[in-house]
Amino acid sequence: MTDASEKESLRGLMDGIGVAAKAAGGELAGTVVEIRNAALQAAAAAIIAQRDEIRAANNKDMDAARSANLSPALLDRLALDDERIRSIADGLLTICGLPDALGRVIAEWERPNGLRIQRVSVPLGVIGIIYESRPNVTADAAALCLKSGNAVILRGGSESFHSNQAIYHCLVAGLRKAGINPHAIQLIPTTDRAAVGYLLSSMAEYIDVVVPRGGKSLIRRVQQEARVPVIGHLEGICHVYLHASADPKMATEITLNAKMRRTGVCGAAETVLVDAEAAHRLVPLVCNALIAAGCEVRGDEVVRQLVPTTVAATDEDWSTEYLDAIISVRVVADLEAAAKHISEFGSGHTECIVASSPEAAEQFFAKVDSAILLHNASTQFADGGEFGMGAEIGIATGRIHARGPVGTEQLTSYKYIVRGSGQTRP
Amino acid sequence: MTDASEKESLRGLMDGIGVAAKAAGGELAGTVVEIRNAALQAAAAAIIAQRDEIRAANNKDMDAARSANLSPALLDRLALDDERIRSIADGLLTICGLPDALGRVIAEWERPNGLRIQRVSVPLGVIGIIYESRPNVTADAAALCLKSGNAVILRGGSESFHSNQAIYHCLVAGLRKAGINPHAIQLIPTTDRAAVGYLLSSMAEYIDVVVPRGGKSLIRRVQQEARVPVIGHLEGICHVYLHASADPKMATEITLNAKMRRTGVCGAAETVLVDAEAAHRLVPLVCNALIAAGCEVRGDEVVRQLVPTTVAATDEDWSTEYLDAIISVRVVADLEAAAKHISEFGSGHTECIVASSPEAAEQFFAKVDSAILLHNASTQFADGGEFGMGAEIGIATGRIHARGPVGTEQLTSYKYIVRGSGQTRP
Repeated sequence: MTDASEKESLRGLMDGIGVAAKAAGGELAGTVVEIRNAALQAAAAAIIAQRDEIRAANNKDMDAARSANLSPALLDRLALDDERIRSIADGLLTICGLPDALGRVIAEWERPNGLRIQRVSVPLGVIGIIYESRPNVTADAAALCLKSGNAVILRGGSESFHSNQAIYHCLVAGLRKAGINPHAIQLIPTTDRAAVGYLLSSMAEYIDVVVPRGGKSLIRRVQQEARVPVIGHLEGICHVYLHASADPKMATEITLNAKMRRTGVCGAAETVLVDAEAAHRLVPLVCNALIAAGCEVRGDEVVRQLVPTTVAATDEDWSTEYLDAIISVRVVADLEAAAKHISEFGSGHTECIVASSPEAAEQFFAKVDSAILLHNASTQFADGGEFGMGAEIGIATGRIHARGPVGTEQLTSYKYIVRGSGQTRP
Repeated sequence: MTDASEKESLRGLMDGIGVAAKAAGGELAGTVVEIRNAALQAAAAAIIAQRDEIRAANNKDMDAARSANLSPALLDRLALDDERIRSIADGLLTICGLPDALGRVIAEWERPNGLRIQRVSVPLGVIGIIYESRPNVTADAAALCLKSGNAVILRGGSESFHSNQAIYHCLVAGLRKAGINPHAIQLIPTTDRAAVGYLLSSMAEYIDVVVPRGGKSLIRRVQQEARVPVIGHLEGICHVYLHASADPKMATEITLNAKMRRTGVCGAAETVLVDAEAAHRLVPLVCNALIAAGCEVRGDEVVRQLVPTTVAATDEDWSTEYLDAIISVRVVADLEAAAKHISEFGSGHTECIVASSPEAAEQFFAKVDSAILLHNASTQFADGGEFGMGAEIGIATGRIHARGPVGTEQLTSYKYIVRGSGQTRP
């Protein structure tokens, strides 16, 4: 094919997906939750029933990935065994068990002229999800959209193409079983990178919001090319600030957990800030515990004097999301200086203050502007499930629409219902 | 100057404004409402005190506008007399009287592990407002942003350049009097159109959301060029649907009011849909009342047979926002057909059903997806003030962040405050 006819055919494919998604989304908005739940249950059953097919598809992806010399970490992300397949099905059932996010009366009031006004939740419409290698996102993301009444257009990573397709067929089987328009969930059936560009730049007519799930380069691409609204997070450069009043034992436990429980999640701590007043007491304790746990500690000059086994931090460290067993540690003058550091180097994701003084915590809450602020609790609680919001599609660091965990409630919009008795406006 | 150096100098100007706005926004987020109110009161006083200067500046704009042969309607929009200046000052005091939108605990709950979670409202940050000829928007928009703790970058129409500057100086005087960083409100001091392009495409680092206020071409430009989130509305093609069960008197009164109370507002009705079953009863009554009130009625074939004094509607009429004393009237088979027409031709703004049957109203609410749906009340109630939300910056027809009237509450985001006692995640 010529380039022009390829372009034409991609446009036709994508516009067709857009039109179908919009129609399916309109129908979905009118369904009761029992129907959407039935589709999720049937999809979960299909995933278990078709686990051999899913594993076979995954084997194809794994073979290609090995030939392409993907890193062991990426291979591990991609791999599906029976246990992981079961946990994908379980994930669908968890979302099935969440309360209905639609039709909630968010607010209601009456006007002096007798008009009764309600703000009622409705779906966003059509959501585009662009994600990378983990095939489970196909099911998780689609299920959250379906549960909240949204049609979804999925675009997975090329490495997981066959795995995504196999999972997607199970989701569509679930829709059909529940009598829902199968276009409510669509997976873009090509690995052509131009499809992502077209989705971002030319489908504003069909897509209400795009949610990118992946690394920094994907998210930057989305934010630069998108002509549709985006809910996303750039990165999680999360801080643990140890106030002078911090209990040393709690400071150590929280810092260890915030960094080392899982180093690859966006809520993992990347930098510890320690009040100068308490540095002698806290820095050796916390750094040695981190080092003993296998973490590389990169400290500023004061830290290096107190704990010579630490590595020298460079300016770049303060703005690096390691996602690894590495942490930077800096001594700051006071809470004000900590807030300034976070505002300068942070990504607006999640920050924690360890302090025995409640006043210090309130000051921290007032002065630091991030999606999630914690007092005396690990940053690893930055998670929709831990917040009691059920599953989430990600943690938003933007300020528009949703901030923090994005669950079913955050995947809704609202409309105003006004009941009158013949009122006209004077 | 060469083109390149002009570009460079515009970039320097705009980036400077962005940096200053971001810093001022950060400070503003920490102010108490009394300080922000004091600034609004002082600005209102300055507007009254400097009314001669404002009128003189407005005369410059009016002279230029007359030389440029602007239409009488545009000249009227631009003109400021003492009464209009007073009403600008009154507008500031009204916004001053609104409740504080910041620091509201939107939701709070406790987790089984003892974590206490609050979702608390915070400002959006920095808001860009791009507007056209009405100089009062300078004060209204800036005041709503200030009240809700946001820094604002204003870009007014070139026709009202001097008027805007004069009003802007009063706003800054208010900020200074209250001890607020004067960069909390900034007006772009150039009529260079490239400034709008730069604001939309290259200031995502500083600006959290752009709100366009103006005609279709402005809003389309913003939606096409913006690399920052946009809250806006395209147009208000609002419908009045007369159900078969409609009371004829109420149908006539509501339709007349929805169209003719003010024809130039976005909540004005542009199309009437009438159930076929009731067409003989309702169409002549409603159309003749409209015609008697000076409205041009463009009807479909059925309408023209029933009321021969109507004009023939073309397909274009169904998707036209007249903003004038013109209305299109169509007979539809039933509620389902009405919903389909609205979904096809409407703009998602405001729709009304006139019906004696409450069941029909509930069906209409379920089937029609627009920002505002009214039962037995005029579409002209589509207004933040009429909703009891105080002043508004516009009616959003998008589905992200805010939908319907955008008041101070809609100009906020939120953050999560989590209070623990040493919790770590297992």
